[in-house]
Amino acid sequence: MKVDSVEFFYLAMPEVTTAADGSQDALVVRVTAGGFEGWGECEASPLPSIAAFVTPMSHGACRPVSASVLGETLDSPDDIRRMAAKIAYNSMDLLQAAHTWSGIEMAMWDGLGRARGVPTYQLLGYPKAYPKVPYASVLFGATPQQTLERALENRKAGFRAAKFGWAPFGASLASDIAHLDAAREGLGPEGILLIDAGQIFGEDVDAAAARLDAMERNRVTFFEEPFHGSAYRAYGALSKRTKTVKTAGGEAAHSRFMAEHLIDFGGVGYIQIDCGRIGGVGPAKDVADYAVKRGVTYINHTFTSNLALSASLQPYVGLADHRICEYPTGLQQLARDLTRNHIVPNANGEIVLPDGPGLAIDINPDALVQYRVDVEIKVGGKTLFSTPSY
Amino acid sequence: MKVDSVEFFYLAMPEVTTAADGSQDALVVRVTAGGFEGWGECEASPLPSIAAFVTPMSHGACRPVSASVLGETLDSPDDIRRMAAKIAYNSMDLLQAAHTWSGIEMAMWDGLGRARGVPTYQLLGYPKAYPKVPYASVLFGATPQQTLERALENRKAGFRAAKFGWAPFGASLASDIAHLDAAREGLGPEGILLIDAGQIFGEDVDAAAARLDAMERNRVTFFEEPFHGSAYRAYGALSKRTKTVKTAGGEAAHSRFMAEHLIDFGGVGYIQIDCGRIGGVGPAKDVADYAVKRGVTYINHTFTSNLALSASLQPYVGLADHRICEYPTGLQQLARDLTRNHIVPNANGEIVLPDGPGLAIDINPDALVQYRVDVEIKVGGKTLFSTPSY
Repeated sequence: MKVDSVEFFYLAMPEVTTAADGSQDALVVRVTAGGFEGWGECEASPLPSIAAFVTPMSHGACRPVSASVLGETLDSPDDIRRMAAKIAYNSMDLLQAAHTWSGIEMAMWDGLGRARGVPTYQLLGYPKAYPKVPYASVLFGATPQQTLERALENRKAGFRAAKFGWAPFGASLASDIAHLDAAREGLGPEGILLIDAGQIFGEDVDAAAARLDAMERNRVTFFEEPFHGSAYRAYGALSKRTKTVKTAGGEAAHSRFMAEHLIDFGGVGYIQIDCGRIGGVGPAKDVADYAVKRGVTYINHTFTSNLALSASLQPYVGLADHRICEYPTGLQQLARDLTRNHIVPNANGEIVLPDGPGLAIDINPDALVQYRVDVEIKVGGKTLFSTPSY
Repeated sequence: MKVDSVEFFYLAMPEVTTAADGSQDALVVRVTAGGFEGWGECEASPLPSIAAFVTPMSHGACRPVSASVLGETLDSPDDIRRMAAKIAYNSMDLLQAAHTWSGIEMAMWDGLGRARGVPTYQLLGYPKAYPKVPYASVLFGATPQQTLERALENRKAGFRAAKFGWAPFGASLASDIAHLDAAREGLGPEGILLIDAGQIFGEDVDAAAARLDAMERNRVTFFEEPFHGSAYRAYGALSKRTKTVKTAGGEAAHSRFMAEHLIDFGGVGYIQIDCGRIGGVGPAKDVADYAVKRGVTYINHTFTSNLALSASLQPYVGLADHRICEYPTGLQQLARDLTRNHIVPNANGEIVLPDGPGLAIDINPDALVQYRVDVEIKVGGKTLFSTPSY
């Protein structure tokens, strides 16, 4: 089969705020090849990602993503990897290319699975999918009391794990300790407690390390993104100062190299991969393989729709020992409406992939209409992109 | 002063080919603040870079570049660094942001220098600018004989150094050796010979190392980009196998972290920085400082107009011992026409920055009209970008 079309649907809530909530908009991708179609989602800024697909060529090493995709043969996983390599080489100077390609790549694994009638994780080489323990991803409260209440709510909702993140964490040591104690109290002694610092410490290892005692005492499982995503030396220095707490990071990786470096040079204990950024499901599986080799735990990163959630689980769903998974709660209506079926914790409070071929998530076409953001891009008088109708 | 406006001019030759020649198009940026203006150039795909400036916000960590720039105070270098930090944080999920910001940042250093009547390198802390020895950047010939002829031409043109790059290098060991020998023969025993493999060996250390003997024998000064720009482990392994040849890389760095990692983990002897990609002149100067500390030689990367060339020299023009510089020859007419004044080798065959404040390169407005590529971007019925008239 040949890749016949790649369509981008930019969707958004009527109002988008500065909250650290990635489900406020979406860039959904449909790929058709021969008789089949597949769906994916870029975890990316929609407009620049569309532009990276349609842009005119700048030179041989700065070609649009479309040049390495449209008309290409798509019969097997190897074809997807071949296209990925082509983009890495021919679009090496187009920075946004990895984010654009991520959604396309995901759609190809979905479509290929549907065409063959097998789930994507089987195409990736896993015979079996294991259940995961989801953590609820929530923001710290404005006060320790609020943090405690949120932890209690999550426990009541049946979550065995919760991740608290972002401001006010980092504001002051005393406040951070109070929030950590509150989170542990709310989760109870058995709850799995995770912390996401949202890069607040920049490269300041001492500032991050000052929180370690309170984290060890509260049995925090991982300490995510204390630093800028690329500050490997800072990660490496902090990782050496931990006892039981592990450092975690990797969500911004836009190539498998970046994730591998965070493991090798940053010493993280958990590597968090977003399939909507790293170049899709294939390189994420490569990172999972690498993590296994290095004794590091793989974990998905995702904060948009259940389509992206399903994609994010495929690369490590076959690894029984890599137990926890990110599970976005509090999604915006757009992200909930986007899919006909949803992934919800089962009676054991665990996440199991839906049965079915590909990513096994069905798109709801009504959402493509309801939340549609029209885009038109003209260059040199020619229309290069105009939002497709569904 | 406040940043009043940021304008983007997308320029292109009538025909753009797949040649590895970055001067076929350009994204020129004009920044105005209070009474002054400054000019910069992104070394980037124009359309996605413009889109990254004007795109609607996706969420708090995926804001458009414009949100951290327009209306901001711009009175000093610290203000530029403050905006850079703001973008790194508020646009952390917008991959293209670094390329967009690079041209804006450059224009700010130009404008600030012009407003104060001092060259940009003095704002960066260098009391003095030293001359550089330019190397002519040329492609290998299709045959060793052609490579020899190109080397001879460059020598005749007065260049003491030449860099040969890209295909057919990497095609076969025998062919590569013949091209290396031919290049040395053409340059003569005194010529400085540099090789750019254009990432052809992927991560294959043995394949790259197989060329080392012929490189040592031909006294190659540096071996540039044998691997994917982020393959630090491969760089590190090859660097350990060299004797006098140094590895070189870094042109794709879109943050100072990436350049520092290539030094720390890749063991490069030359770090090559493109100010049009790394986030402008400021982070490039940070890398130059880091290189000095680590005993590594800084070198500019640039392959577009003389505006970008001037910007690329500022971060290390005050370092007398970092002697050679990239000097694009064979620029397309667009890149030549873009500036009123040009940087040409002096009687000693050396490159000296033009006298004058800021980047000391004056834009030719006629070129903005002649090579102009009209862009119009509409989102949700609103025009977010329309090529400004000059």
